[in-house]
Amino acid sequence: MPKVYLIGAGPGDPDLLTVKAARLLETADAVVYDRLVGDGIMDLVPAGAARIYVGKEAGYHHMAQDEINDLLYRTARPGRTVVRLKGGDPFIFGRGSEEALYLRARGVQVEVVPGITAASGCCSAVGVPLTHRGYATGFRIITGHCGGNLPLDYDWQCLADPKTTLVVYMGASNLPEIAHQLMAHGLPGSTPAVAIASGTLPEQKICRGTLQDLHRRLETADLPSPVLIVIGRVVALMDELAPEELFDFALEHAGHA
Amino acid sequence: MPKVYLIGAGPGDPDLLTVKAARLLETADAVVYDRLVGDGIMDLVPAGAARIYVGKEAGYHHMAQDEINDLLYRTARPGRTVVRLKGGDPFIFGRGSEEALYLRARGVQVEVVPGITAASGCCSAVGVPLTHRGYATGFRIITGHCGGNLPLDYDWQCLADPKTTLVVYMGASNLPEIAHQLMAHGLPGSTPAVAIASGTLPEQKICRGTLQDLHRRLETADLPSPVLIVIGRVVALMDELAPEELFDFALEHAGHA
Repeated sequence: MPKVYLIGAGPGDPDLLTVKAARLLETADAVVYDRLVGDGIMDLVPAGAARIYVGKEAGYHHMAQDEINDLLYRTARPGRTVVRLKGGDPFIFGRGSEEALYLRARGVQVEVVPGITAASGCCSAVGVPLTHRGYATGFRIITGHCGGNLPLDYDWQCLADPKTTLVVYMGASNLPEIAHQLMAHGLPGSTPAVAIASGTLPEQKICRGTLQDLHRRLETADLPSPVLIVIGRVVALMDELAPEELFDFALEHAGHA
Repeated sequence: MPKVYLIGAGPGDPDLLTVKAARLLETADAVVYDRLVGDGIMDLVPAGAARIYVGKEAGYHHMAQDEINDLLYRTARPGRTVVRLKGGDPFIFGRGSEEALYLRARGVQVEVVPGITAASGCCSAVGVPLTHRGYATGFRIITGHCGGNLPLDYDWQCLADPKTTLVVYMGASNLPEIAHQLMAHGLPGSTPAVAIASGTLPEQKICRGTLQDLHRRLETADLPSPVLIVIGRVVALMDELAPEELFDFALEHAGHA
């Protein structure tokens, strides 16, 4: 039976691949990968393996989802190790489950290998716990960029919960709207917030601020897409938990310096 | 400067450690670990390394948090590789950030290595995407067991959102209350739900049902603690996405057979 490994590549740092993902990549015959998979990770793929780029960028799809599904189906063969490699975790955004459904419906086995999702990877890298006693009893992950550029359709009253850390994937372009709605529904404008690009990679960039001012700070911060945004009291813990090399930078950008 | 690596051990399967975590464990001089770290993972620790168990179970703490903090502080020495190993991700519940704060305040460096959190690991293992177009626009993670056995303090109206997947860590004991509140606030009792124990391990056990009946099914399902509970439309996708070996079992327990 043909089989496809649907693998999460994690946040970018090859060291944050799972042991299983690294082993499968090193024995792959074909790897179908996205824009969000870092170069360092693709370096693990054997020289003789097929590398098929199907990268997506907001507003521009290199290959339509239907075509990706069909490509995976046609690539899978008994005895061939086919890896579908996606940034982060395959079952968190990114349409991995749609690909899995397509393949399973056509008799292709799918094994899902989870990856470190961006929220977890980036927050560890910058010193922001997703939960912390007295600060956040849980967290919530949404996307700031809906398919087809549709308007955001969220229950803003529920998102504006000071006890829940809010993580927004691909949040930069709609941040003015998101911040406006959250403040209009009662979340204080002073709530700490941080934007992270290329989290866990050497070129990681962050921009700190508050719910009220982060979108203006981002205008001049020059962070490459995609940007992960974390909003909540826990962000204040960066003052104590950010890695030493980030520390001065983080304080400066929070306006404390 | 002394340093402690605060490492996420992931959901249990040693293959789901990150490459970085595995490497650090293999070179550790001392490992301070929890109950939720699997045996297969501790097998990676060198024979000569100190292994210090500080496991916690609901309602019974082997060692108080203050003692764990102090133990970590006393174990850290310049030139010694000290690993604090926690199940899942160190910055998602589990008080990793409290340990990091304690150490940083006393001049100990802390490097956080993220891990696959249970929601990601378990959902991949059983075929439940955390998001899926038309089913869930995001997800939310809470704990079903508050410190000190305090009553749950959530905005139930906001949790009862049919478009958001709800994941409850350590959710078994309070599931009757959680289900009651969610239904009282409008989430249909027919919403699919699944409980997962030992997710990603060979001894993984699941129990499927609905928001309304899962807690009764759990009474006879004999799942070991801790249990992860997923509530939301995405759980229905198990019918198509569960691994083949789970498939008959999953259908039977959903009452379809």
